[in-house]
Amino acid sequence: MARPFRFQLEATDGAARRGAIETPRGTIRTPAFMPVGTAATVKAMLPESVAATGADILLGNTYHLMLRPGAERIARMGGLHSFMNWDRPILTDSGGFQVMSLAELRKLTEEGVRFRSHVDGSRHMLSPESSMEIQRLLGSDIVMAFDECTPYPADAATARSSMELSMRWAARSRAAFGDRPGHALFGIQQGSVFRDQRAESAERLIEIGFDGYAVGGLAVGEGQERMFEVLDYAPAMLPADRPRYLMGVGKPDDIVGAVARGIDMMDCVLPTRSGRTGQAFTRRGVVNIKNARHADDPRPLDEACACPACRAYSRAYLHHVFRAGEIIASMLMTWHNLHYYQDLMAGMRAAISKGRFAEFEAAFHAGRAEGDIPPL
Amino acid sequence: MARPFRFQLEATDGAARRGAIETPRGTIRTPAFMPVGTAATVKAMLPESVAATGADILLGNTYHLMLRPGAERIARMGGLHSFMNWDRPILTDSGGFQVMSLAELRKLTEEGVRFRSHVDGSRHMLSPESSMEIQRLLGSDIVMAFDECTPYPADAATARSSMELSMRWAARSRAAFGDRPGHALFGIQQGSVFRDQRAESAERLIEIGFDGYAVGGLAVGEGQERMFEVLDYAPAMLPADRPRYLMGVGKPDDIVGAVARGIDMMDCVLPTRSGRTGQAFTRRGVVNIKNARHADDPRPLDEACACPACRAYSRAYLHHVFRAGEIIASMLMTWHNLHYYQDLMAGMRAAISKGRFAEFEAAFHAGRAEGDIPPL
Repeated sequence: MARPFRFQLEATDGAARRGAIETPRGTIRTPAFMPVGTAATVKAMLPESVAATGADILLGNTYHLMLRPGAERIARMGGLHSFMNWDRPILTDSGGFQVMSLAELRKLTEEGVRFRSHVDGSRHMLSPESSMEIQRLLGSDIVMAFDECTPYPADAATARSSMELSMRWAARSRAAFGDRPGHALFGIQQGSVFRDQRAESAERLIEIGFDGYAVGGLAVGEGQERMFEVLDYAPAMLPADRPRYLMGVGKPDDIVGAVARGIDMMDCVLPTRSGRTGQAFTRRGVVNIKNARHADDPRPLDEACACPACRAYSRAYLHHVFRAGEIIASMLMTWHNLHYYQDLMAGMRAAISKGRFAEFEAAFHAGRAEGDIPPL
Repeated sequence: MARPFRFQLEATDGAARRGAIETPRGTIRTPAFMPVGTAATVKAMLPESVAATGADILLGNTYHLMLRPGAERIARMGGLHSFMNWDRPILTDSGGFQVMSLAELRKLTEEGVRFRSHVDGSRHMLSPESSMEIQRLLGSDIVMAFDECTPYPADAATARSSMELSMRWAARSRAAFGDRPGHALFGIQQGSVFRDQRAESAERLIEIGFDGYAVGGLAVGEGQERMFEVLDYAPAMLPADRPRYLMGVGKPDDIVGAVARGIDMMDCVLPTRSGRTGQAFTRRGVVNIKNARHADDPRPLDEACACPACRAYSRAYLHHVFRAGEIIASMLMTWHNLHYYQDLMAGMRAAISKGRFAEFEAAFHAGRAEGDIPPL
């Protein structure tokens, strides 16, 4: 565990960046998409299958894990990697976002957030200090600072007050994290859609000093156009020699647009959740497998995809098992979606290396519009 | 597809038999346990994982498949093997049992059974001729004759009337099946718990001539003791040079007892269904993973099991994902149960070859009683 946590920037193409994060548990190729493993499982997938899609890193949710099965329990079982049988890197969020969206009777103070569990009603506290402790117990490789995800829309005064609280919490997170070789702590930029506040947030985070920086407070209802407006300036405010993580994004075109604007890491439940509800992401756009027109279609979901669902099963089969409520429908559709997302990331990484990212982006959009298969 | 369907009896030990059924799609080692793939999927398993447990053959349900997605549709997709991505042998039942237990407004006549689908209310007919046609469309390797599974209990007159109907249907099934090299047709012995009727049924089936013979009408509520009483004489009435299949059995001790009495093939939903409800079969007996006492248990389900669930996951993890309602709980628990069942079959085959089946049986029961792990 002595190898340092290190970000290597390998190529740039416009604002788009290709790189690698070296960790004691392996290399994370960037731009990276992180599948979400909320409750110590990427839903409907075995971890070796997640790895087979090309994922270098998973995201775990601190809020869910602290409530069930509990961080101390996971620590007793040897940490989250061992518990869930995933030996590659894991990033954990701070719990800040989900405690505000899922918990009951939550009360936010300068100290942190008191709340009741949505699982069993038990009382808990999340603060910069307790979040760092929980993420340490989980054994997370990339720990996120505890922050408040500023709700959208927020007026400038509300956004500022929220951002300043998050910056004070960022400093407390940094202090509580301490020195943990081989583990990284990321700060989170806030400031809503206000450029001056984004700049101030970035400055204060850089002053504290983090191993990586997230752009927070986006993908919360502002829409793609406004999100891209913020991404036109916000990532560039963060250090070029550290990874930049856009939290909770997104649809394939969100991801391509974010990479075009200098983002290195993303996570989203969309590929897994959509898989379970019968939506497949393909090079020709979204396929809703429950539609009757797939009932006799011998073709795979995506002719150009090498995932097990596309290699061995027809749309007719996937339609049948989805309609019949069979678990294998969730398994195969999720596998395909995660594979598609990783193909998309691999395609972007290759395009950046060749200095052809704009061409890739154009082909991506044209393929989805015209029904052709672009060279992902 | 020219290689003949052939049963090779390799060893016997008392009434227990070890053998192999050669088919164009591969060898079925007997005694064999067939996982059930009702709706063109073994629930919560990928077919390559089913194969990895050691299963040589699957069972498909004619009744379910004819209703959804439809036998003609499966035929258009290249048959059930291709549709569900399983290239080893498949046995299909005749639909006779399930039409009587699941269908609505069913009407049984000499011709067959008219009914309405439990899925969408549509009207259908199952008869010896239509069952043979559906199983042909599915591409089944081992086709079952259409019969009536005599309900239990039945008085002698009712049982006889039902058995005689099944024998007339057996003859019609044989005629409708015709000559299909590389595919086998099995007849089904009925006669309830009446020895004279079992003998008469066997004689009539042998006169018709089948590639294999099932003992039908058991595991329908009569209990293990009464089932074993019938198995003490019924299998021996069937030709020694053909495989003997006990339908719908059963719990591990049912299976061991059936093999001890000369049965070569079995199928049951128990390992898959129990997996989804949190029950694991192990060398020490049943483990109910939802019990709170497993929450902090770092041990695998079964120390002596080499399945992925036991190699890489603790009881604590399985307890957590089961409680959290995660799909991976069904995936891992099902995998373990199918692996356990196949280990059990492999253990019995080895014991029969060595002439040590009685010893195996004693160790099996002692292990479950004493909590020790017998040498499966």
